[in-house]
Amino acid sequence: MSRRNKLYEGKAKVLFEGPEPDTIIQYFKDDATAFNAEKKGTLAGKGVINNIISEHIFKALSDIGIPTHFIKRTSMREQLIKAVEIIPVEVIVRNIAAGSLSKRLGIQEGTPLPSPLVEFCYKSDEFGDPVIAEDHILTFGWAEEHEIDELTHYALRVNDFLSGLFAAINIKLVDFKLEFGRYYQGDECTTILADEISPDGCRLWDMKTGEKMDKDRFRRDLGGEMEAYQEVARRLGILPSADVTEIADHLKKEG
Amino acid sequence: MSRRNKLYEGKAKVLFEGPEPDTIIQYFKDDATAFNAEKKGTLAGKGVINNIISEHIFKALSDIGIPTHFIKRTSMREQLIKAVEIIPVEVIVRNIAAGSLSKRLGIQEGTPLPSPLVEFCYKSDEFGDPVIAEDHILTFGWAEEHEIDELTHYALRVNDFLSGLFAAINIKLVDFKLEFGRYYQGDECTTILADEISPDGCRLWDMKTGEKMDKDRFRRDLGGEMEAYQEVARRLGILPSADVTEIADHLKKEG
Repeated sequence: MSRRNKLYEGKAKVLFEGPEPDTIIQYFKDDATAFNAEKKGTLAGKGVINNIISEHIFKALSDIGIPTHFIKRTSMREQLIKAVEIIPVEVIVRNIAAGSLSKRLGIQEGTPLPSPLVEFCYKSDEFGDPVIAEDHILTFGWAEEHEIDELTHYALRVNDFLSGLFAAINIKLVDFKLEFGRYYQGDECTTILADEISPDGCRLWDMKTGEKMDKDRFRRDLGGEMEAYQEVARRLGILPSADVTEIADHLKKEG
Repeated sequence: MSRRNKLYEGKAKVLFEGPEPDTIIQYFKDDATAFNAEKKGTLAGKGVINNIISEHIFKALSDIGIPTHFIKRTSMREQLIKAVEIIPVEVIVRNIAAGSLSKRLGIQEGTPLPSPLVEFCYKSDEFGDPVIAEDHILTFGWAEEHEIDELTHYALRVNDFLSGLFAAINIKLVDFKLEFGRYYQGDECTTILADEISPDGCRLWDMKTGEKMDKDRFRRDLGGEMEAYQEVARRLGILPSADVTEIADHLKKEG
């Protein structure tokens, strides 16, 4: 890792220069943070699991025509992605009120929303990713109007597809966060899905028991984080027998 | 069955007057037809399987906010539905070229389409459900412009959701047909999803083997129709152990 040129280190991932121009290596860490990094921890093996879950979902989204930055997974913790200019607007889609929406607006957690709600947040650790309206995005030039339309269109398609994918394995997709990037090829610039999709950025509730299978287990000190993440991967059919703790131990031994 | 008032008999279903005003009983037959009923057959237990598959899918679609005619399943072969005025336009969504599209336009079966293709057909047994354009629909008053928009919107949402639902169980959703109806409540008229969603009206290919798991087995004399339909139901988690042939035998004994 040290031989490569580090471009950026975030809370859960590190970006390195890729092997070819306009490519990047996205490395998944085991670090977990919540409440804008006020709460910090480590979940052994999380990076490995999130890497394969995100790979699986980005491939499936690409199959239905949603353009993404994903090229291929290159190791247990790394994937090769297209270099993009990240649009500093996080897109959140909600099917059921939970988390910050419930806190901000006093809507009881668990209330089904009449239709999927698309929220935008300004991507800024300094300001704690505050909720913004479309007009803020236009006023401050974070994205153009046609880009906001694309973000919304893709976000709603991702919501419908993932709602089906998770419904088939008895998981309710409560909400999730997406990030998009500008992908330049010559004079052309297209909007593509970036970042990751994993239990770190989704709320996933078991349809039968209501049990949380996502980062809320960490946020709310419920424990069993990695068991829940593994169960998601198992139900998705991408973790037939491997044990992530074993994998993590193995990686530690490798240094 | 004979005590009830039959309203309509189609190729695969019979509609009876429901127990309450504005309700209908939809009965699933075992009859199979293809090529506008030039080919006819019976698949023992098909009605039972399509009844539960359609129930499962309509409930899941309702959960993501797509309005449907489905109220509840009332027996092995029957479901209670809302009475609607069927819009005489069949909506077909295609992800991969197959069947009539390949025949009509010479596009090789199996060619992935660059984006989901929405086709309209005029629902008419007499004329063999011919392909039409939006302008035909408007010219002949089969639906209004805002209804065409709704049909298209819902059809694309159903496509994304079902693509996810089936992807999770290793099935590629190649194409499918939807019908919609006008649902009147007092002065209000809304467009809701009607008919059924089952392997009779979808093309479903096993993602690993490419095997057809739908009515093409019947159309093309491939055999194993009911095994394929049952496998779809089993993977959807709604046929954990029951054997549809047993069920059908049981129904026959009951008369």
